[in-house]
Amino acid sequence: MAKEKLSIVKIGGNIIEDDASLSAFLKLFANLKGKKILVHGGGKRATSVASKLGIESKMVNGRRITDAETLEVITMVYGGLVNKNMVAQLQALQVDAIGLTGADINSISSEKRPVKDVDFGFVGDVKKVAHNSIDKLIQANFTPVFCAITHDGNGQLLNTNADTITSQVAVGMSELYDTSIYYCFELNGVLKDINDKNSVVKHIDSKLYSELLEQGIIADGMLPKLENCFDALHHGVKTINMGNTSMLTQENDNFTRITL
Amino acid sequence: MAKEKLSIVKIGGNIIEDDASLSAFLKLFANLKGKKILVHGGGKRATSVASKLGIESKMVNGRRITDAETLEVITMVYGGLVNKNMVAQLQALQVDAIGLTGADINSISSEKRPVKDVDFGFVGDVKKVAHNSIDKLIQANFTPVFCAITHDGNGQLLNTNADTITSQVAVGMSELYDTSIYYCFELNGVLKDINDKNSVVKHIDSKLYSELLEQGIIADGMLPKLENCFDALHHGVKTINMGNTSMLTQENDNFTRITL
Repeated sequence: MAKEKLSIVKIGGNIIEDDASLSAFLKLFANLKGKKILVHGGGKRATSVASKLGIESKMVNGRRITDAETLEVITMVYGGLVNKNMVAQLQALQVDAIGLTGADINSISSEKRPVKDVDFGFVGDVKKVAHNSIDKLIQANFTPVFCAITHDGNGQLLNTNADTITSQVAVGMSELYDTSIYYCFELNGVLKDINDKNSVVKHIDSKLYSELLEQGIIADGMLPKLENCFDALHHGVKTINMGNTSMLTQENDNFTRITL
Repeated sequence: MAKEKLSIVKIGGNIIEDDASLSAFLKLFANLKGKKILVHGGGKRATSVASKLGIESKMVNGRRITDAETLEVITMVYGGLVNKNMVAQLQALQVDAIGLTGADINSISSEKRPVKDVDFGFVGDVKKVAHNSIDKLIQANFTPVFCAITHDGNGQLLNTNADTITSQVAVGMSELYDTSIYYCFELNGVLKDINDKNSVVKHIDSKLYSELLEQGIIADGMLPKLENCFDALHHGVKTINMGNTSMLTQENDNFTRITL
């Protein structure tokens, strides 16, 4: 028997930081038919609050370190300010939203990243998605809105990459649903020519992916994203879509659809 | 048929602000048998974050005004930092907690307080508790943890008194459950003599309440609290308990139990 469809939509900081973009996106999300989950990433909001509080962003080799103070700011800004305002706005759009971290209903547990060359601090790598618990919310017609925070099960919240949360939640929910991911980002999709924003590759399957890799057409920044996509597809996710938020409408087909 | 029991426990800022007190309380709460809801109030944490962010507390006639900036801080500190850390700690104690504002699952809607003599700003007076939606969480064996934030249904979060949230949630849930409120505070209970912390009145019913009022025994600060209690009892709540957190254990009976 065919499983019911479930869409997992991820938005990044560029949308969250701009009130008009966020409001426009939330309308698109509210109009998206069927059962759905929203995941929102970080953005510069936390950095600006941290800097006002006199907490400096710590970087090692260009990567951000989450010390205890930074984790507090992330919990305040993403878990509180951004998440709860988004929930209130979705309620006004008749979406019965519920804002979550991975600690809520133990939905996403993770493991503090082991210290090797770099100590990333309070950063968590996802260990387990409680798909049955999340499904209780979905079955009650609630729409989960996840921020990029998980927990270790011992009382410690952990900062976690929002793209990873998205793919792991989608993989977990694939036990119960036909899942599609929508990664909303700045570009129109995967581009053949990075300098031509209209050179969208509309469909990538395993075969084309190998060819694009061989031809060296996939740009550096896109490589890990696509690797993660095919990993999720190999673990049960049906379709992954990458493009700007207008891909959520029926009218626009100018985005990249990725399948096995 | 007798309804199932539901406990609604409220803690204030004095417990939240002290890590050891909070941790001790959460253990008591975790051990409390049966279905339960936690409501946490504010405290000085938001004031200290606001002051670090350069936002001044605005008071009119000794009452705090919630302007837009203050509401942001409250949403960050109570909706994010305090609520989500409490949820993570409860998960470590095997309580399947879920942190909520009134916007989540539209659980508590309120109305921005009308401007009369004073404009209190973004303060909400509770209008409706969605007891059936909250019950979906309870039926799924989740334990709701409410912070003192509600919403107006039009996308606006509103700062709301935690005692009021407690009594309104208890009244709403009385449709479905035999509800008991536990107001945890600094005192051991309602005191006959404000200077003697051991002069706890162990049981107050309507008759004794009238007598105490006539005799002028109830101190000023306690008057509105008790009025609210009897209002909640008249609207379906079975029992209200007032005392320090140890009243949650079976061993201590040195607190005030209030019934009709």
